[in-house]
Formats: sequence, structure tokens, C-alpha cells
Amino acid sequence: MSIPQKHFKKGTPKPEIPEDGVLRYYTMRFCPYSERAQLMLAAKKIPHHTVYIDLTEKPEWYIDYSPLGKVPAIQLPHLPGQPTLVESLVIAEYLDEEYPGERSLFPKDPLQKALDRILIERLSPAVSAIYPVFFTTNPPEDALKNFEAALDVFEEEITKRGTPYFGGEQIGIVDYMIWPWFERFPALKYTLAEPYELDSKRYPNLLNWRLLVSQDEAVKATALDAKVHAKFMRTRHEGKTNYDLAFEPL
Amino acid sequence: MSIPQKHFKKGTPKPEIPEDGVLRYYTMRFCPYSERAQLMLAAKKIPHHTVYIDLTEKPEWYIDYSPLGKVPAIQLPHLPGQPTLVESLVIAEYLDEEYPGERSLFPKDPLQKALDRILIERLSPAVSAIYPVFFTTNPPEDALKNFEAALDVFEEEITKRGTPYFGGEQIGIVDYMIWPWFERFPALKYTLAEPYELDSKRYPNLLNWRLLVSQDEAVKATALDAKVHAKFMRTRHEGKTNYDLAFEPL
Repeated sequence: MSIPQKHFKKGTPKPEIPEDGVLRYYTMRFCPYSERAQLMLAAKKIPHHTVYIDLTEKPEWYIDYSPLGKVPAIQLPHLPGQPTLVESLVIAEYLDEEYPGERSLFPKDPLQKALDRILIERLSPAVSAIYPVFFTTNPPEDALKNFEAALDVFEEEITKRGTPYFGGEQIGIVDYMIWPWFERFPALKYTLAEPYELDSKRYPNLLNWRLLVSQDEAVKATALDAKVHAKFMRTRHEGKTNYDLAFEPL
Repeated sequence: MSIPQKHFKKGTPKPEIPEDGVLRYYTMRFCPYSERAQLMLAAKKIPHHTVYIDLTEKPEWYIDYSPLGKVPAIQLPHLPGQPTLVESLVIAEYLDEEYPGERSLFPKDPLQKALDRILIERLSPAVSAIYPVFFTTNPPEDALKNFEAALDVFEEEITKRGTPYFGGEQIGIVDYMIWPWFERFPALKYTLAEPYELDSKRYPNLLNWRLLVSQDEAVKATALDAKVHAKFMRTRHEGKTNYDLAFEPL
């Protein structure tokens, strides 16, 4: 019994998931918030079953797991009532606490943890600015300008911290929680009428950081190629969003 | 030397705050997110100085404390670099960890903590629906309907938990984090052309909960009367937002 590797749609019956007490991960393969959870699962080597959800036409039964229909969701079938958790950062902190593994990814010091959580939130303005750019070929004039101004915060912060990772000498929670968007930015080389890349003069340390993080084992196990992201974005430009192309050869 | 009890505006110089290492709390007196931080300070009896910020015309110097100009912010002058924390839930968790006092307000169990954080997030749809209603006399038709549907979640949850508080037998983090909006709902008795109150048949347990929480010491020390909230809302209806009326006699 295995769960089909495809995004479940409206009208498709609930997949049969093995009743083996193994954690269940509900995701859309291109969703950056879902990828946060996937990175935690990979970094902590947590066994799990994966169920893909079509976000355009959600299967009716998905609301039983995620009451607002959002991904990611994590179901814990080994616990009484088989509870489900949603919200990527809540899931990340829960997995970090329950599966400490070799080391914790969140800082133990309350102040550093608070500062890291605030830094993760500081990506929101960059995400808000770039999101419409992902899904068009000709972005509005100010979008990339606003995006770059929001990213300056991260160049400044990695420079100030003076460590290879935001987490210090080792990869940490900020690195994993912001990575999914840095994985997607290079797709703009392929999707925009005027190809776009991050300016290596403006973001030297951030681009070094990006290269370093791209070599992390959990990231390598999770990331999709920029060309695959670009292909997905193009299906959205054309109003024919195709989630399953994540599973097709490039 | 004391800090004036008024909202600091654009053009007003930075107040002189005693250099006594005491925590500094930046707020707007009617901001429900700020109130979350204030409730934590009151519940934990944490000494602090309060600086009020005019959100319509923010003082130029405020960006030094809160880079996006948001309230609440908490500055920690006793720590190296005098760091500032923002985001109400980040502040709440930091204060709970650093000032455990008699007891922690966040659950110690990672699963219960995750479930409580998700429940706090579930108030967002109710807040989004009611926010425009606070600032008009004739709300759009669906606003109150959507608001009530979103609140059903909380009636169901308090009923399911079967305890007087969301936190159990004692008040806890969910109770404090959602309270500020429940403090403001009764203002709709006074502000709407067609006065509005929560239906006691639809929300019996939630209304009992509200009454109970309104008697909590930290809540009593923090809450403003529904009529004061209504008066503030009216100044916004009229485009003459007056934050300082929080300090005037009703």
C-alpha cells in the first residue's frame, strides 16, 4: 500500500494511508510554507507519509485535517485523537521540540529565539513584494524595488552576525525558514521578459549564504531546480496551474 | 523625571526615559496587539515604562525601536545592545520564558503549546471580519455573518475543553491573547446604527468565559470600558482619530 505521488483534487477519494502510526505530512509540492515543514522533516530525519493537495481544487476530505484548507499540515496518528497541526512555524517549533535529534534548530536562549522569530517575520515584506512577480512576465515597476529594499535587511543581518549561517557556525531555524523563497528567486532568470537576478554587489554575503545553504543535505533532499519552479510559474501565467509537473522529468 | 501620558507624534522629541534598566513598553493605547503585551506585563507584574505612539503620525525616532514602525515593541535596556522585540506573540512568549513568575502561561507540553498557538491564529478570520465593522456605522452585509461564523470555532473549543478558561482551571495564554478583541466587541452596542451584541444562545459558554476573564486582575488593570472604545471608534468614523481620549474622563 503506497500513497500515489500526485496532487489530490476535488472529487478524488481520500488516499489509503498505512495505519502504522507514522506522521503524515500534507503539502503542495511548490508551496514555500509547506517546504518549511519538509525541511524540518528532512533535517531531523523524521519518518513520514506525504499526501499532496491540489490547492486550486481542494479535495473535500482535506478540511478534516486542516480546517481552513491550508497547507502544510502535519497529522500525528500515534497520539490520542490523531491531532493535526497547521501553520508552518508552529509545525517547525513542534517538530524541533518533539524530535530534538542531534541538536535543536531553534535557539535555546529566549532572547535569541525571539530575535530569530522576528527576523523570520522580516521576510514577509520581501515575500509580499515578490509574490506577484512570480506569477507574471511583466512585473509592476515598484515590485522588484520594494523586494530589494526588503532583502537589504537580510544582507545587513548576515553581515552583522558574521557567521556563515544565520544560525551561526551551523545551519539553524532562520536559515531553513527563509530558504524556500531563496530557492525560488533564481526562477526569475527564466520567467521574466527582462531576466532578473539578485545583484552580487548589493547582496554579496547573502549570495554566499545562499550557495552554502543550497549544499545542506536537508535542502538538497527537498529543493527543486529553478527551471522546475520557472515551469510551474509559467503554468500559472497561463491560468493552467499544474502542480504535478513537480513529478515529471524536466 | 516621568514620561508624559500622551501619544507621541511626528515632530515631538523623544521622551527622556529614566536610565534605570527598567523594561520599556511602546504602545498605542487602543491597539489590541499592544494590549496582549500589556496583559503579559500585568499578569507577570513586570516593572516597565510606557511610551505611547501616535500611529497616524508616528514620531520620527520610533523607527529606531521598531524598524517597521509597528506597536507593540518592548525594549530591554538591561541587556547588551538594549535590544527591542516586536510582534505581540513573540513578545508574549519571551516574557513568559524570561519572567516565569508564579507559573508559565504557555503550556509546557509541546503539543498543547502548538494547539494553543493554532487556536490563537484561528481568531484572525474573526478579526479580519470585524475590523471594518469597528470603524463604520453601517457595516457591509456579510461582515457580521462572517464574524459570527469565525467565532463559532471558539464556542466549540471552550465547550470541548470543558474548563472555565481556554487555559484550563486557570487563565492561560489563549485567554490573554484573544481577550483584547472580546473587550472591544461590546462597543458595537454603541457604535452601529443597528446596535449589535453577541447572541447568548449561539455563544453561551464563550459569554460565560468573557465574564470570567473580565474579572481577572491583569485584565481589570488593562481593559478600557466599552464606551471608551466606542468613543475612540467614533473619532475614527469622523476621520479625527483621537488616541489621547484614553486618558480623558468618559
